[in-house]
Amino acid sequence: MIMKCISSDELSIFCKQLFSVLGANENDAITASDVLISADLRGVDSHGVSRLTGYVNLWESGRINMNPEVRIIRENKSTFTIDGDRGLGLVVAPRAMDMAIDRAKIYGSGWSAIQNSNHFGIAGYHAMKALSHDMIGMAMTNATPFIPPTHGKEPMLGTNPIAYAFPAGEQQPLVMDLATSSVARGKIEIARRENKHIPLGWMLDKHGNPSQNIDELKDGGMLTPLGSLEELGSHKGYALGSFVDILSGVLSGANFGKWVPPFVSFLPLLPELPGKGLGHFVGAMEVDGFRSVEEFKLNMDVWISSFKNAKRIDENQPIYVPGEKEFNIEKERSITGIPLNDQVFRDLEELSKKFHIKL
Amino acid sequence: MIMKCISSDELSIFCKQLFSVLGANENDAITASDVLISADLRGVDSHGVSRLTGYVNLWESGRINMNPEVRIIRENKSTFTIDGDRGLGLVVAPRAMDMAIDRAKIYGSGWSAIQNSNHFGIAGYHAMKALSHDMIGMAMTNATPFIPPTHGKEPMLGTNPIAYAFPAGEQQPLVMDLATSSVARGKIEIARRENKHIPLGWMLDKHGNPSQNIDELKDGGMLTPLGSLEELGSHKGYALGSFVDILSGVLSGANFGKWVPPFVSFLPLLPELPGKGLGHFVGAMEVDGFRSVEEFKLNMDVWISSFKNAKRIDENQPIYVPGEKEFNIEKERSITGIPLNDQVFRDLEELSKKFHIKL
Repeated sequence: MIMKCISSDELSIFCKQLFSVLGANENDAITASDVLISADLRGVDSHGVSRLTGYVNLWESGRINMNPEVRIIRENKSTFTIDGDRGLGLVVAPRAMDMAIDRAKIYGSGWSAIQNSNHFGIAGYHAMKALSHDMIGMAMTNATPFIPPTHGKEPMLGTNPIAYAFPAGEQQPLVMDLATSSVARGKIEIARRENKHIPLGWMLDKHGNPSQNIDELKDGGMLTPLGSLEELGSHKGYALGSFVDILSGVLSGANFGKWVPPFVSFLPLLPELPGKGLGHFVGAMEVDGFRSVEEFKLNMDVWISSFKNAKRIDENQPIYVPGEKEFNIEKERSITGIPLNDQVFRDLEELSKKFHIKL
Repeated sequence: MIMKCISSDELSIFCKQLFSVLGANENDAITASDVLISADLRGVDSHGVSRLTGYVNLWESGRINMNPEVRIIRENKSTFTIDGDRGLGLVVAPRAMDMAIDRAKIYGSGWSAIQNSNHFGIAGYHAMKALSHDMIGMAMTNATPFIPPTHGKEPMLGTNPIAYAFPAGEQQPLVMDLATSSVARGKIEIARRENKHIPLGWMLDKHGNPSQNIDELKDGGMLTPLGSLEELGSHKGYALGSFVDILSGVLSGANFGKWVPPFVSFLPLLPELPGKGLGHFVGAMEVDGFRSVEEFKLNMDVWISSFKNAKRIDENQPIYVPGEKEFNIEKERSITGIPLNDQVFRDLEELSKKFHIKL
């Protein structure tokens, strides 16, 4: 696969211009671009500019409002619900997170359920907004259904990610950002392209049985919940995905379960939707309400170094703490630029032509 | 294995008397007993009266204060930290949860980090206290280290459970209560007693490699994080266990990681502890701050029935929603009584003799 490297600044300008052309105001275009580029910088390539065409398709199918009036529709001090007015999740979620942070400054914590939104990019970005305020950040979202419940063969849950960010002292912040599936769909796609074997537990066939035949992914195949197989605890991944779906979908008044609007614009919405759009849930807690920030950060550093220095299986294979690999990649890509594979680069070239934006 | 059935009322009186004899006041003895019996009623036998001897051993080794002065040591409106004064977690956690619920009544949500506590029984019990207030409840705790981080061979995390409880309408509430390990240690013990095979992914040997040799559990063997094997996402279970450890341990000022005090009294504490006792984290959010309770419950019912009615792999194998099996067992055991295996019954008989309490 041929790779081209483009600096994050250049890519960022391209994204920003694209969102502007689609009708976003200056601030929103910058925010949306920032979320996508942060994914590419952190090595989460599946959620960066490779998604641009998908967002454009959604916009073209009329499912995205580029000038949403994001507003609070219900609230009680530390808690509130946002109507995202069919905006890009890339824009709606950061606004909700800013408001949650403001609430946390007043009430110690702030929590926002969000309805009527769309795909919000990487969950980690939103959680990390809390860090500069010495807060613990949290973000989750429901997503296109790809996962059946244990014993089921109908996709009812998305990869429903959970992200948390904890500030540290000398060490990098601890950031966990994990899909509640065993693997991302993208990993199976990559294995297919590279003609590689996948382990038992990554995928189910359309009958709900574990399968290693990658071709079945396009024929009703599904992902497994974290835990992968029933005997290895798939009911736990199913429970975690449910937790995300209920906070993001049911609590907010968005859609949930099999009714969550798919990211790809060519799939139709189900009839008789129980809610509005896609749902997220974000929040922030001020460390200071629990413990002095200084003590907390000192102990976070102890936590992190004790895990990194735990006894290793293989001396040459380091132990990483959650988020560490992503910080390392970000450091590298800030210098080398962001590698784009052939397909993604071609997609960007097409967008460049179509919307007359210099790549 | 011979089973005896005892009614939950009789067992409850036994527990209550035992905690009273150990020095707990009337209210605390009732609460502690209630937490244990709820585990037995819900079928979580590993966390019910089978633990009584363990708690007594901890008390005898001087690690439990039966008359703790549970108090708030830091707070900011919706958030606060509790010093459990070396009390039973069975008593400290419900008190903290009551306070969190009180905060949620005022601020929409209430969150408590808890230090200087001990083993708190089943997490689900504490989360479920929120239900009668039309709140979403949450509880987690760190625990005896049994799990290495991915690429490690040193136990750094406990089974660190996460529990959430969501109220519903006509349906039973949705209650998830899951250890962030692939399986409970007890399941491997049962397999050993019954001479059964365990699947690859449940256990690691002392070198950190996957093992199916149950005997190695007593020889430095460890549990795997949820996700079980590296290729199936063990780093996600490691991240979830870390999340629980940091909220419960670092945020509260309790011990964390390898320093978490073990439940069994014969294992020594490590030197130079970074915190006080065991840590928990509990919280409650009022539904009404996000959405009308009526609408929320209606949609919870839709959520639950849509999952239960999703297409099945095997028509005869029902799909359960989180917590459903436990409600079914509770219904049954409320009538039939609680089955105790031979070993547990003998333990209770010994306690009965030792403390002169009628069984």
